[in-house]
Amino acid sequence: MSFPSVALPQVAVIGAGDIGCGWAALLASAGWPVTVFDSDPRASAASANRIGLRARALVATGRAAQGVVEHGLADLQIGRSLLQAVQPAEWVIEAVGEELRTKQRVIESIDDVAQPEAIITSSSSGLGPTDVAGRARHQHRILIAHPLNPPEIIPVVEVIPGPEASTRVTQRLGEWLRALGRFPVTLRKVVPGFAVGRIAAALWREAIDLVLEGVIGVDDLDRAISLGPGLAWAAAGPHLSYHLAAGEAGLRVFLQQLLRTFEACWDDLADWSTLDPEHLRVLEQAVERAYEGKITDLRAARDRRLAAMLRALEDTRQKEG
Amino acid sequence: MSFPSVALPQVAVIGAGDIGCGWAALLASAGWPVTVFDSDPRASAASANRIGLRARALVATGRAAQGVVEHGLADLQIGRSLLQAVQPAEWVIEAVGEELRTKQRVIESIDDVAQPEAIITSSSSGLGPTDVAGRARHQHRILIAHPLNPPEIIPVVEVIPGPEASTRVTQRLGEWLRALGRFPVTLRKVVPGFAVGRIAAALWREAIDLVLEGVIGVDDLDRAISLGPGLAWAAAGPHLSYHLAAGEAGLRVFLQQLLRTFEACWDDLADWSTLDPEHLRVLEQAVERAYEGKITDLRAARDRRLAAMLRALEDTRQKEG
Repeated sequence: MSFPSVALPQVAVIGAGDIGCGWAALLASAGWPVTVFDSDPRASAASANRIGLRARALVATGRAAQGVVEHGLADLQIGRSLLQAVQPAEWVIEAVGEELRTKQRVIESIDDVAQPEAIITSSSSGLGPTDVAGRARHQHRILIAHPLNPPEIIPVVEVIPGPEASTRVTQRLGEWLRALGRFPVTLRKVVPGFAVGRIAAALWREAIDLVLEGVIGVDDLDRAISLGPGLAWAAAGPHLSYHLAAGEAGLRVFLQQLLRTFEACWDDLADWSTLDPEHLRVLEQAVERAYEGKITDLRAARDRRLAAMLRALEDTRQKEG
Repeated sequence: MSFPSVALPQVAVIGAGDIGCGWAALLASAGWPVTVFDSDPRASAASANRIGLRARALVATGRAAQGVVEHGLADLQIGRSLLQAVQPAEWVIEAVGEELRTKQRVIESIDDVAQPEAIITSSSSGLGPTDVAGRARHQHRILIAHPLNPPEIIPVVEVIPGPEASTRVTQRLGEWLRALGRFPVTLRKVVPGFAVGRIAAALWREAIDLVLEGVIGVDDLDRAISLGPGLAWAAAGPHLSYHLAAGEAGLRVFLQQLLRTFEACWDDLADWSTLDPEHLRVLEQAVERAYEGKITDLRAARDRRLAAMLRALEDTRQKEG
């Protein structure tokens, strides 16, 4: 892995849940100076350990160099207050719960005390930049930078600048993300769930429906996706996959052959927008039964697979020059 | 790669399009004796070369052993008639165009001349087993075995037995598929598009909609999926991914936090079921512009990435024991 080098900014991560700790693990594993703060003292206290475990796991799976990680972790600080964490930071990452008023309040507080040049990003997976920045004074420096789970491994980060965002701010953020080995994708419009989240939601609704309708079990479905379209999409996104699915002829001929089949399918897909309590219970039980009590092990195994596939993709890309 | 060993059945592949040649490349690359027939003499004539290229590409990407592939290709035969291809076969794979009457007619013809013990599978991506077997006399031996594209690389095969299918037939087919390194997934019910196709259709509809609405470009969307949820789903299917997304707490707590976000998203997703000519034209042009005139190269690069990821997944699994 070699990423463009930048002057390392001082970073603050506000919120030490799963996403906040993931961001901090990524930053520390790249040797960036980071301070974490959570308004819950227990979460703050536990975060150094969690971040250490996750950053060192990146060494074990070959995603980070031990020396850099240990250097980053030695520099990791747990803030005593939001003020103390934010004041020295050039980049403040908000990673509190996905609740509008909470995010607005936290971002307003960050904006009030951050340096004039600091950039503030929200990790929101669904609330737009004007939503979360609604109460802040300096809207030009507040953007959405939505990572996937786990943020320290999956490269994609959706970037959504608000209407007031300055180009300089958006460019700087892009440089930082690329320097961290991330792949920033900038959306041209704000839509509920953004792009990646909408696509994941569309997929998951149909997957849930197939399980609830008894077409396929949870684990068979999961493995069918992993060893089927998941793998295919990791090698080529959906548009490219179909463009390559009709020999030399491309998408036009593919759709001449199969548009009717897709239309029949689209017409029949699940279209509900709420999951009632009974169906929710059935789904949760089916998933718990399929993956009984092994979350830590399953997560470690998943992360090893992710790291191995990323290495394989990088090797392939390198050979292609 | 080491797969369970079985007595190699004589196989016939009827239809030498992209899917038929993929099946034949897979079979030949495993050293299985296969005869290909297409009612279009040009397709039949061209198939030996296409199958050879695809089978040898598996050697180049480490998915097959050169000696076995050359042995399989030396045994490859191009049938002079459907009768000649089918008569000696223990497994007949139908891979003609996705059109009900065509498939019914071809499967009826196969069923009329196949050995009593032969198993007949249809590669249909949307028509059910009773649809395609509608006109055949021996319904107990006709199943859907739907591969993904390209069949010689992607492991998943959806198996859908009809109501008359015998357990022996379904089991035998499962053994063959596993011996070919495939991952057969049996559906409990027939639904339009099957499981994998419905999920892919749900995802693609939303992806098309995001492009048509101007939220994101074709190539950014494709890469966002590849380096984001595609990669994540290749490492863990959708249910498992969300089960692992809330730390130790599992799906129940994940949904306590995020069900409302999903519901808001589900409520807003694309729900159209037809793609009108103007939108179809815009989509095709956008995809062609994104991936201008490089289908052969793009396909080879995609296949190299697939092979590298599969190797990485196998290595990881092997280390886990």
